Amino acid sequence: MNYLKLIIAIVLIASSARVQAQKKEELKDKYVLVIHGGAGTISKSKLTPALEYEYTCALEEALHRGQYVLDTGGLAITAVEVAVKYLEDSPLFNAGKGAVFSHEGVNEMDACIMNGKDLTSGAVAGVRNLKNPIEGARLVKDSSKHVFLYGDDAQEFCLSKGASYADSSYFFTEFRWNQYLKAREKGTIILDHDTTDVNYQYKTLEELEKFGTVGAVALDRHGNVAAATSTGGLTNKEFGRIGDSPIVGAGTYASNRSCAVSCTGKGEFFIRGTVARDIAARMEFADISLTESGERTMKRLKKLGGSGGFISVDKDGNYIMMFNTKGMYRGVVTNEKNAVVKIY
Amino acid sequence: MNYLKLIIAIVLIASSARVQAQKKEELKDKYVLVIHGGAGTISKSKLTPALEYEYTCALEEALHRGQYVLDTGGLAITAVEVAVKYLEDSPLFNAGKGAVFSHEGVNEMDACIMNGKDLTSGAVAGVRNLKNPIEGARLVKDSSKHVFLYGDDAQEFCLSKGASYADSSYFFTEFRWNQYLKAREKGTIILDHDTTDVNYQYKTLEELEKFGTVGAVALDRHGNVAAATSTGGLTNKEFGRIGDSPIVGAGTYASNRSCAVSCTGKGEFFIRGTVARDIAARMEFADISLTESGERTMKRLKKLGGSGGFISVDKDGNYIMMFNTKGMYRGVVTNEKNAVVKIY
Repeated sequence: MNYLKLIIAIVLIASSARVQAQKKEELKDKYVLVIHGGAGTISKSKLTPALEYEYTCALEEALHRGQYVLDTGGLAITAVEVAVKYLEDSPLFNAGKGAVFSHEGVNEMDACIMNGKDLTSGAVAGVRNLKNPIEGARLVKDSSKHVFLYGDDAQEFCLSKGASYADSSYFFTEFRWNQYLKAREKGTIILDHDTTDVNYQYKTLEELEKFGTVGAVALDRHGNVAAATSTGGLTNKEFGRIGDSPIVGAGTYASNRSCAVSCTGKGEFFIRGTVARDIAARMEFADISLTESGERTMKRLKKLGGSGGFISVDKDGNYIMMFNTKGMYRGVVTNEKNAVVKIY
Repeated sequence: MNYLKLIIAIVLIASSARVQAQKKEELKDKYVLVIHGGAGTISKSKLTPALEYEYTCALEEALHRGQYVLDTGGLAITAVEVAVKYLEDSPLFNAGKGAVFSHEGVNEMDACIMNGKDLTSGAVAGVRNLKNPIEGARLVKDSSKHVFLYGDDAQEFCLSKGASYADSSYFFTEFRWNQYLKAREKGTIILDHDTTDVNYQYKTLEELEKFGTVGAVALDRHGNVAAATSTGGLTNKEFGRIGDSPIVGAGTYASNRSCAVSCTGKGEFFIRGTVARDIAARMEFADISLTESGERTMKRLKKLGGSGGFISVDKDGNYIMMFNTKGMYRGVVTNEKNAVVKIY
């Protein structure tokens, strides 16, 4: 009888342990991916319908690529890298391929990635010839004993670890931008547009230049959050300027204790306001919701004089997309909701 | 009668306004200055009495210089700059003059300064020829529209605004270090020390190299807090590596809402842990004391695997000096308490 009891007990314990182990490996249904392509004085009057369509398509495709990763049980850190990489490859945003607007054809790009699971992160700043700065940031995170590398040395490190090199001719130039716009307008709306009239195009270009940081935050089916941000910086910035995007706690932050954040806007205010960390810290230390934390952080950013926006997703799948500018290129997709893209 | 009442009322209002204005300008008695010269495996057996004496003198003098500023009603931001500048000028710490240990005689120095009153801040990283990197950080804060500048461009900007240039020969070299040690030991303890025995000296040098970040935090008589940190970085670091010292929220932070913080230790952990901001954020959002906030932040830093320490003073004049290493060069002076310096 006692033996029987023992055997039953062992079987029960073993099967309960097995169920628990299975539970641990079981993927949750819930996943969320939120992206942004920069915030600024974006208004209907300044974007042609064709350009608006281009932006919508690019943001949707970035969402779909990241969604595929999450849907199939991939990690948040991979989803945000994939989404940001796609936006970097687009000439529409001031990151990666679209980063260069200066006459010299050079620009300094920054990027940062952070994993909420273990707070590991990687960042590069002032790189000029990495095809995808976010890939560089990921390599720093995974393969360097450091978190933050700058300039030619950062680039050299990333290339030695397998990052893709891109000649400066790969990056976007004003000339090529005008070519592109002309082609688009010919093909879609203004068939007989006067090709010598580049004024309008230049104005649009200026708008884009200012507000083109890209970013992504995600919650994966394992319950991890992650964040990634990439930027070509500001025009007419002093060289050697580092903005908020590559700085953990300023433009990028992620912790499974609270949420993942990616910011865009006037970087100096986001550094001084430690905006990305504050959104998470308010949740952790004041025990308030993501929405309330976002609102309080936005209020304080405004008080500092800062303009811009941020996206965030918390560990429970709540998400926010907040900005105090006219518009922010943004989009979201979840396990329950098809991709939605908004601009204004 | 009515006229008389009116006149009395005016006089009363005017005098009360005058008293209030005087009150506003009235300086409080309380001021605090805390400094550090790095944390690490500093133990009695590794420091000669002569070297220990040198460290004590240097830290005391830095405290006295900063104290003079505070005592005479100067600003916290000036006091921390003055104190850090003095430590930079000493060859004993891995910042400013003492920053260079490499055979090439070059090193990359980082510094950051932040004013708790308005959250303005300035930082430089990867500079090689600024005599006082903290002066560079202050110039970025006061004269640049940016917060964070890197490398040759940062240096150029600071020099154009009046920062002092220093040739690489100014900075500390191994050769000169050995000369210095020999001179000291001859003069103080080991008169007949074997001058060919450089092994011991080299070992000491290695210790110093690792843990030589300097920093200061202060509360001034106007009620403002400020923080400053300066470092020569790590030996054998990858070039282009940015540590926590120049990053707002990582190695340096100040806000009149809570406290001012300067950190020292393995920078990567302080970046990932947003240590400086977290000490302040816990006070602001969780409404706990500086000591409790410091303890919780230290606990989390340990959990991440980070070693080092930090100093902090809050808006009410409470201060902490915490570290999870064997020792930290540190000191404090207040309006009530003479300068006290400790190492172990």
